[in-house]
Amino acid sequence: MEPFYLSTAFKGVQETTPLVHCITNYVTVNDCANILLGCGASPIMSDEAEDVVDIQSICGGLVLNIGTLNKRTIEGMKAAGQCATELGHPIVLDPVGAGASALRTQVAGMLLDNYAVSVIRGNMSEVKALAGAAAATRGVDVNPDDVVTPDNLGQNAAFACSLAQRTGAIVAITGAIDIVADAGQAFAITNGSPAMGKITGAGCMLTCVTAAYAVANPQTRLEAVLTAVSAMGIAGEVAAARMRPGDGNGSYRMCLLDAMSTMTADVLEQNARIEAL
Amino acid sequence: MEPFYLSTAFKGVQETTPLVHCITNYVTVNDCANILLGCGASPIMSDEAEDVVDIQSICGGLVLNIGTLNKRTIEGMKAAGQCATELGHPIVLDPVGAGASALRTQVAGMLLDNYAVSVIRGNMSEVKALAGAAAATRGVDVNPDDVVTPDNLGQNAAFACSLAQRTGAIVAITGAIDIVADAGQAFAITNGSPAMGKITGAGCMLTCVTAAYAVANPQTRLEAVLTAVSAMGIAGEVAAARMRPGDGNGSYRMCLLDAMSTMTADVLEQNARIEAL
Amino acid sequence: MEPFYLSTAFKGVQETTPLVHCITNYVTVNDCANILLGCGASPIMSDEAEDVVDIQSICGGLVLNIGTLNKRTIEGMKAAGQCATELGHPIVLDPVGAGASALRTQVAGMLLDNYAVSVIRGNMSEVKALAGAAAATRGVDVNPDDVVTPDNLGQNAAFACSLAQRTGAIVAITGAIDIVADAGQAFAITNGSPAMGKITGAGCMLTCVTAAYAVANPQTRLEAVLTAVSAMGIAGEVAAARMRPGDGNGSYRMCLLDAMSTMTADVLEQNARIEAL
Repeated sequence: MEPFYLSTAFKGVQETTPLVHCITNYVTVNDCANILLGCGASPIMSDEAEDVVDIQSICGGLVLNIGTLNKRTIEGMKAAGQCATELGHPIVLDPVGAGASALRTQVAGMLLDNYAVSVIRGNMSEVKALAGAAAATRGVDVNPDDVVTPDNLGQNAAFACSLAQRTGAIVAITGAIDIVADAGQAFAITNGSPAMGKITGAGCMLTCVTAAYAVANPQTRLEAVLTAVSAMGIAGEVAAARMRPGDGNGSYRMCLLDAMSTMTADVLEQNARIEAL
Repeated sequence: MEPFYLSTAFKGVQETTPLVHCITNYVTVNDCANILLGCGASPIMSDEAEDVVDIQSICGGLVLNIGTLNKRTIEGMKAAGQCATELGHPIVLDPVGAGASALRTQVAGMLLDNYAVSVIRGNMSEVKALAGAAAATRGVDVNPDDVVTPDNLGQNAAFACSLAQRTGAIVAITGAIDIVADAGQAFAITNGSPAMGKITGAGCMLTCVTAAYAVANPQTRLEAVLTAVSAMGIAGEVAAARMRPGDGNGSYRMCLLDAMSTMTADVLEQNARIEAL
Repeated sequence: MEPFYLSTAFKGVQETTPLVHCITNYVTVNDCANILLGCGASPIMSDEAEDVVDIQSICGGLVLNIGTLNKRTIEGMKAAGQCATELGHPIVLDPVGAGASALRTQVAGMLLDNYAVSVIRGNMSEVKALAGAAAATRGVDVNPDDVVTPDNLGQNAAFACSLAQRTGAIVAITGAIDIVADAGQAFAITNGSPAMGKITGAGCMLTCVTAAYAVANPQTRLEAVLTAVSAMGIAGEVAAARMRPGDGNGSYRMCLLDAMSTMTADVLEQNARIEAL
């Protein structure tokens, strides 16, 4: 894969201002909207079943984040997922807390089974729970040893490729080492900062940015996801470098948004650490 | 109109701490609460039908923002709108996304038709959609050429006055050039910064500040709205002037809140750019 | 009571990363999540009745904040409250707006009557309304003279102890002077800054931090609450000291999060102002 895809995917977003419809949790929704604006996209939030079809119809893609799901918004997710599937719009699924409750695991699996999910973005525990749910009704398969390390990277990459093959989605599993895979190949991305784990929403924000990149780059979706994941990690690094004495997670959250909204194609190309596995 | 109304309206808010009840979207609700506190008001959020009448009864005004409306909160908006109408409290309607979905257009029109809306605050597309919806059931009239420019200012001002006359509300249409009108006269306000469009919530926040000003200045409502719109624009300018290298939309959002909460009557009077049309 | 309990309680949180399940209002939920992360805990938000039992089961404690309650989330609060009670997990109740509406007063009283609430955290008006509601169905007893002053401190401390005795909960009433009491003793805490009243969420955030401290220090719950209240006040002081010209409530909010996330046991011990009454 050629390195220039990073700036190509970046410019794809900057030049087309993709409209992203988000059904997402109310904890991090403001950060999601701001990082979408910051990365060059435009957000619309709408979760009522009667509203989502009209909204999805004028958008380019859909985020389904189950972070604070409820029975009403699950209906909204279904209607929006159906609409996006029919229109061929990319759907990015964020299975927040899959494995932590039966409802979350079940809903995440239901969404994956019934709609044309283009990208799955979660941490390893969530994605493993989702993989189990999709395989057997309400089954959950959480591995206690979920942290991706150099030692288990090959095994985890194989898991990601296998899930990608089974679902047709690109799988993006993020953590200290991120794994992005389609059915045929997997990549490790080592951008990022431990500080991202001390704020809420880094994962939710990445899910939204991934959707923006997927919408803007329909012909090169794997490259788009790799770029989004790398861009978020680099933003995390830039934000960490700006911290001064007395700064904590309040400042870090602000600087993370700043870093995404001031990113350039050059910064992206020069700092991305993506390795084919 | 005398220029001293700006500081009079400003002091009206500072001296009375108007209590503003907001039924608003969950995307920008935290910024709405903080900017109300920053401008000298006090916010209360409540959207459950069984709760809103008690809450509205102890407040001075109501914000109805349909940004993430759902069937439950629509009932809350109705009950609160009825209560505010009966009590003579100003209602500020923000038709977020009117024209983007049938539900939004319909609900915005329903609220305008049934309750004593004092101020409509939206962008030109939303307000045009609202105007169509109020005229004919579910009809939507969106003009693709919605950006207010010096060339079409007269025509857009006439539209605003016409909508104000028909509805009895003051109409505040915001963008690069803002238009504020009642039935008899229109004004253009050119305060603001392009950076306000790179964060979520500048419009929602202005809607809330407008409500605070309307509550605190019952005898001079047009002047109150002009002051609120100008104050928000000036805050946007002050925030833009504070940006440093590396700052992006995270910092800008913070500085916008800072600017509103540190504004003085002098800053307001010296920087307002309001022109009678 | 020995002063070393402050750093002991602090280390209890830092060393155990308590998992806190929050059912809280959507206005300040992001700040609640970030301050939980900042103080060394880990937040999970879940409000759907079908989801909350699984979530509470994997957590150590529960926050019930009625700030934007609705009929659906009230069911979630009941199910979560029941689960936490059965499991012996601490429940921290924040009766936001009790006394301002019949629904809020009634729901706050119902939660207090039916579940094993460990800590009540509110302002004096809210706690007085709650005390009335718990005593007589739907009764509300709000004293117009609710500000705690040196002159009425003894009387207010007696009220707090009385409520603590009747309910079995530790009572934390916060304002310019904070009162923390169990049935047998009361303390005044004078940390804090007036700037905390110019942002939304300082109370909600403290409620969450209190839950984290209660979870992490099961054997010394009164000390845990005293430490949490003092830590929040000190964070408010540290944030106020960092304000520069042009800074307003946007910056203050960020610095408050920063201060909690960079606090040390030494800063806590050296700055706490806790007086036995």
